[in-house]
Amino acid sequence: MTAPPHETHPARPGRALPDTQQGMRRRNLARVMHTVSADGPLSRAAVASRIGLTRAAVSTLVDELIRSGLLEELGPERPGRVGRPGSALAVSARGPAGIGAEVGVDHLAVCAVDLRGRVRSRVVRYGSNRGRSPAPVLEQLTGLVRRVVSEAEAEGLWPAGLAVAVPGLVARDARTVVRAPNLDWHDADLGALLPGDLPLTVDNEANFGALAELWLGDGIPRDFLHVSAEIGIGAAVVVDGRLLRGTRGFAGELGHVPVRPDGLECACGGRGCLEQYAGEKAVLRAAGVEAGEDRVGLLAGRAAEGDESVRRALREAGTALGIALTGAVNLLDPESVVLGGALAALAPWLLPSLRDELARRTAGPACPVSVSALGPQGPLLGAAHSVVRAVLDDPAVVAERA
Amino acid sequence: MTAPPHETHPARPGRALPDTQQGMRRRNLARVMHTVSADGPLSRAAVASRIGLTRAAVSTLVDELIRSGLLEELGPERPGRVGRPGSALAVSARGPAGIGAEVGVDHLAVCAVDLRGRVRSRVVRYGSNRGRSPAPVLEQLTGLVRRVVSEAEAEGLWPAGLAVAVPGLVARDARTVVRAPNLDWHDADLGALLPGDLPLTVDNEANFGALAELWLGDGIPRDFLHVSAEIGIGAAVVVDGRLLRGTRGFAGELGHVPVRPDGLECACGGRGCLEQYAGEKAVLRAAGVEAGEDRVGLLAGRAAEGDESVRRALREAGTALGIALTGAVNLLDPESVVLGGALAALAPWLLPSLRDELARRTAGPACPVSVSALGPQGPLLGAAHSVVRAVLDDPAVVAERA
Repeated sequence: MTAPPHETHPARPGRALPDTQQGMRRRNLARVMHTVSADGPLSRAAVASRIGLTRAAVSTLVDELIRSGLLEELGPERPGRVGRPGSALAVSARGPAGIGAEVGVDHLAVCAVDLRGRVRSRVVRYGSNRGRSPAPVLEQLTGLVRRVVSEAEAEGLWPAGLAVAVPGLVARDARTVVRAPNLDWHDADLGALLPGDLPLTVDNEANFGALAELWLGDGIPRDFLHVSAEIGIGAAVVVDGRLLRGTRGFAGELGHVPVRPDGLECACGGRGCLEQYAGEKAVLRAAGVEAGEDRVGLLAGRAAEGDESVRRALREAGTALGIALTGAVNLLDPESVVLGGALAALAPWLLPSLRDELARRTAGPACPVSVSALGPQGPLLGAAHSVVRAVLDDPAVVAERA
Repeated sequence: MTAPPHETHPARPGRALPDTQQGMRRRNLARVMHTVSADGPLSRAAVASRIGLTRAAVSTLVDELIRSGLLEELGPERPGRVGRPGSALAVSARGPAGIGAEVGVDHLAVCAVDLRGRVRSRVVRYGSNRGRSPAPVLEQLTGLVRRVVSEAEAEGLWPAGLAVAVPGLVARDARTVVRAPNLDWHDADLGALLPGDLPLTVDNEANFGALAELWLGDGIPRDFLHVSAEIGIGAAVVVDGRLLRGTRGFAGELGHVPVRPDGLECACGGRGCLEQYAGEKAVLRAAGVEAGEDRVGLLAGRAAEGDESVRRALREAGTALGIALTGAVNLLDPESVVLGGALAALAPWLLPSLRDELARRTAGPACPVSVSALGPQGPLLGAAHSVVRAVLDDPAVVAERA
């Protein structure tokens, strides 16, 4: 499990390309794509000046990217600019698309995102997946994937890869779910149960949520700790714009950081883990609220109405989160902490005690804590965008397949 | 403090070189140096086959490295090998040297390490630096640096840079000590107080200790958590062979992870920090031992003699370390934890309770904990080797200065 055979997979962005002429060409193709993606529409001359290559070199790269359907020409630029008008380039709205999927405890979702980052198709199915075995769940998910792919194809897109977010620990092979306690899945190879015709990446939902924050969030730094919750509590550590995955791929298990070392027993074998004080079950229990559908909405609603037992339960959860985050901030020195997923919806009642705890345990200014604007959409969007980013990061791989 | 102006400093290894022909040449020079350093003596042909370049290309690179004094020719290889005998290449024993220095609470030390990794000169001065202001301490250190440099020069070496290990938090500018509580230093710019003629890097002693472990340790993985202690408790996080520094450069503050959230007040403003239960002062107090010189040796001696109050104090410190490390291991998923510095000397009495605590709080196999063979030598060696590694990582910079 320590060898990452899929680390060269197109949906694993940021890897190094070989240091040869061919590798340099691939990196320069990536530079052109990223430049046009970030700042386009742009003329060839504008691209050349931004990336510091000659106009002739850029034209060769651009022609290749147009041939493979990754860039398109929008026609002559509007006049009034200096120099001969060039044809403006944009990333293609009819080229490759990233297919993102999410296996939630209470829902399944699939979407297609084009190279411009727009969601072009999206389906969601509600219904509990707790205790269902992987095969029927993934069969249902495959049906949704097929539907989204065919909708995307109808608009001239083609799927460049499939990325699946799951609420559990995923091995570094990016396909095996080692443990997903809230689904009761163990050592499930999702690769064998999902469409074989698409490059596949499976990852933890907190990781994809953090990547969505990094890529789509407003003013999010490149070093942050992303904390999210569906049923359990997960975190993802982003360092210098990259996910810290850990040796086995299990980094970010904030839910099992001890916050009351002699406290409640936890299913992990430990005692006093954060999850026992700030996990969904713990909060529902402390609030005296019955578990049902849309539990987060229920808690948020009651708290908004002023239900003191719910507010107290959330305040105590915020304190526990503050203790665990004090440790995490001391270890990692992130620029900020971002609350995502279900925690984003509950933030108004969690944040005051969380921030107090962090501040009173910190010498000097405490690490800022913000709330994700993506909330529960993060993991699905992060999954789809991870495929899109992989295309931008190494367009040559897709160009060869186009 | 977030902008790292010295991040391009020769003693900050691992940075990316620009992606141009010139950058490629620099990277290939580095490849030749690293290959000869790891596997030499080697012929030009052997180097070429190992790094996948033509013999002619390698010869050009090698000639440049010989001219700058980074490689040397040992004369014809011994016969019996296939093909025409070539002259064997080795990294130079008379070229650049890394100067490492350490400001300890109770000592100062300086050493010179050549490109082959051998310590060529070393001086240590014992005496407390607690409460001394930076200027006289660094004046004394500068005297020791001058002495080591002149000894190295007498052997034909020349100093490529100076790296200084300090027991405190260092800003990302790699020269400002933001906080060193056990020296009582605050916002001290060491750059202004050290020789101006050598490229300078200042870093936390735990960071240099971890790098020493990574570069010199036996069977040390590329993902590990290095925990060390002099007076306080520090840690360094190594991910994929690189230090995780944090936004401000403060990552690895394991000493202030809460292990008894409602416990003893800490000078950091928090409560129940690890340092209050496993720091040197806490252990001496719990053991009923008076602080004096060589406190670690005293504790180890008493524990070895069977002093039950010392053993109990160390057992309890091990438990507290185990709680803090459970959180760290859950967050980072390292391949192992390495105990260095003073903790290495006390390991026989800390490890059993530390390992117990980690195991009983972990589902599945617990993260392995090992003891550094470098112990208190780690930071000084790591500092000197950081300069040597920087030369191997970008020989062109040194070649230009030679």
